[in-house]
Amino acid sequence: MGRPSEDELIAAYFAPLAGPSAFALRDDAAFLPQRPGHETVVTKDMLVAGVHFFERDPPGPIARKSLRVNLSDLAAKGAEPLGFLLGLALPGNWTEPWLKGFAEGLGGDAAVYNCPLLGGDTVRTPGPLTISITAFGAVPAGQMVPRAGAKPGDRLYVSGTRKPDWAASLAQLERAYLVERYLLPQPRLRLMEALRAHAHASMDVSDGLAGDLAKMLRLAGLTAEVSASGMPLSEAARKALAHSPALVETILAGGDDYEIVCAVPPSRCAAFESDAKVAGVPVGAIGTAVPGDAPPVFRDEEGRALAFARPSFQHFQC
Amino acid sequence: MGRPSEDELIAAYFAPLAGPSAFALRDDAAFLPQRPGHETVVTKDMLVAGVHFFERDPPGPIARKSLRVNLSDLAAKGAEPLGFLLGLALPGNWTEPWLKGFAEGLGGDAAVYNCPLLGGDTVRTPGPLTISITAFGAVPAGQMVPRAGAKPGDRLYVSGTRKPDWAASLAQLERAYLVERYLLPQPRLRLMEALRAHAHASMDVSDGLAGDLAKMLRLAGLTAEVSASGMPLSEAARKALAHSPALVETILAGGDDYEIVCAVPPSRCAAFESDAKVAGVPVGAIGTAVPGDAPPVFRDEEGRALAFARPSFQHFQC
Repeated sequence: MGRPSEDELIAAYFAPLAGPSAFALRDDAAFLPQRPGHETVVTKDMLVAGVHFFERDPPGPIARKSLRVNLSDLAAKGAEPLGFLLGLALPGNWTEPWLKGFAEGLGGDAAVYNCPLLGGDTVRTPGPLTISITAFGAVPAGQMVPRAGAKPGDRLYVSGTRKPDWAASLAQLERAYLVERYLLPQPRLRLMEALRAHAHASMDVSDGLAGDLAKMLRLAGLTAEVSASGMPLSEAARKALAHSPALVETILAGGDDYEIVCAVPPSRCAAFESDAKVAGVPVGAIGTAVPGDAPPVFRDEEGRALAFARPSFQHFQC
Repeated sequence: MGRPSEDELIAAYFAPLAGPSAFALRDDAAFLPQRPGHETVVTKDMLVAGVHFFERDPPGPIARKSLRVNLSDLAAKGAEPLGFLLGLALPGNWTEPWLKGFAEGLGGDAAVYNCPLLGGDTVRTPGPLTISITAFGAVPAGQMVPRAGAKPGDRLYVSGTRKPDWAASLAQLERAYLVERYLLPQPRLRLMEALRAHAHASMDVSDGLAGDLAKMLRLAGLTAEVSASGMPLSEAARKALAHSPALVETILAGGDDYEIVCAVPPSRCAAFESDAKVAGVPVGAIGTAVPGDAPPVFRDEEGRALAFARPSFQHFQC
């Protein structure tokens, strides 16, 4: 029995995920849904087996992570998901059960995040599985939160706790890290209204907090003193740090966070914190933006400056 | 000396290609330019070294082809290019001269087709070079030309001549094919107004005329008798066919065409042909759509039905 053609595969696994403007994935192109009074923002993340996930990871979580890293970018911009395109390069050893699992994972998240499939392309690759997702979001006109908008005096916030499940020893921490690899990023979409209402600047942390904060501030000619003691650490992470202060580097500079870092003017901080609380997203103030072109300095609980061997995790670096 | 980081690479090679809504490629997302009274259509094509082009092809043409296959989809929908996103997975052996050539080719076509870079993602891959482009186009509201809109009685047209440079023997034809691999598709954007004004249905031919025409008609419950004698053959191709009638299969079913096939109601044929002529795009009427669910029958100059060993070229099939 032959393997399904591209058209058969699309009809079987991906057409059920398609939004109403996608022509059941049977046209050369799709309409992009537009919302009156809104602007459309667009983002694209590419993921490669062996680089961004392991080839043997289960297909559902691979699919979900691929979509969620894009949704995390939309969240940082204050944009509500509109839909996405899927580019899928499949290696020769793909199987139908694998593809079924992939489509189910993708469809589950598309439903949860109200972000339908609009179209895409499926090709064969002699290399590793490669996934390229383009996601669209809607922002009320003029309200997109830029990466470059921080102002001197803005308070800097980071979402989430670092790390909710980290344990009390390095060995446990490393084990937890291995498990976390399989954990899916939680795009902070519930924070988007608070960001639009109050933040001057925002980005999603995907290459480690230290490096990404430096990027955001550099765009505005700013720097900061960041106090590790202000970081929203979980109890377990705090305990781990107390035992092994060197872990602070791992905690602050580790990649793959998918939290939001943002800059909020002092007059809006109370409202931002209150709106974030209502949205159910923990946020912690970690410092204040000041003019300067040096990278932000991170200080531990005793006020000592921390040095990062690896200030920013770059998937690209080779 | 270290290799440039992803950020340095983007700043050096891709930021100069960026459109005004792309934030110099330094944000998590970009605005999608919107045109009042227009709808936005979106398309995505993925290309893999060793599948869609050869790894040793020069970088400029690889970049241009990757953009043009997407522009060809926009052309078929009657959409004017607005911009594109670039997903680029680079193998470990990339060099800066290669990347410079790639960016120059891409920038050249972005300028020619008025289609600026809006954003994207650059990652490392242990596999082959993989390019995923998402292109956006604007169509006056309600005027997108669908793939599924053909009606019984519509005349079927194909753009271009098949093939301008094909020669008089199979050996020559094969040599020409090898050369043609390097030739770049010419997206038929100049045909877009004629398509919007007159066509019921349209698609771009990327998997061979025979298979793609079958796809377009099947969506509308139609079929057709296609006369090879009505095909807009170049003089060279006509000569080749006269010598080797078996070549008709190669000519009709070959992939990678990037011409437009469309369905035009009889009352609009004269206007369509005239508008296409003004636009400088050759079009030829090849048959008439009739109800039926069989694949279209192609007949040679003596009226014999042609059988295609490979009705549609699918890059995906493995």
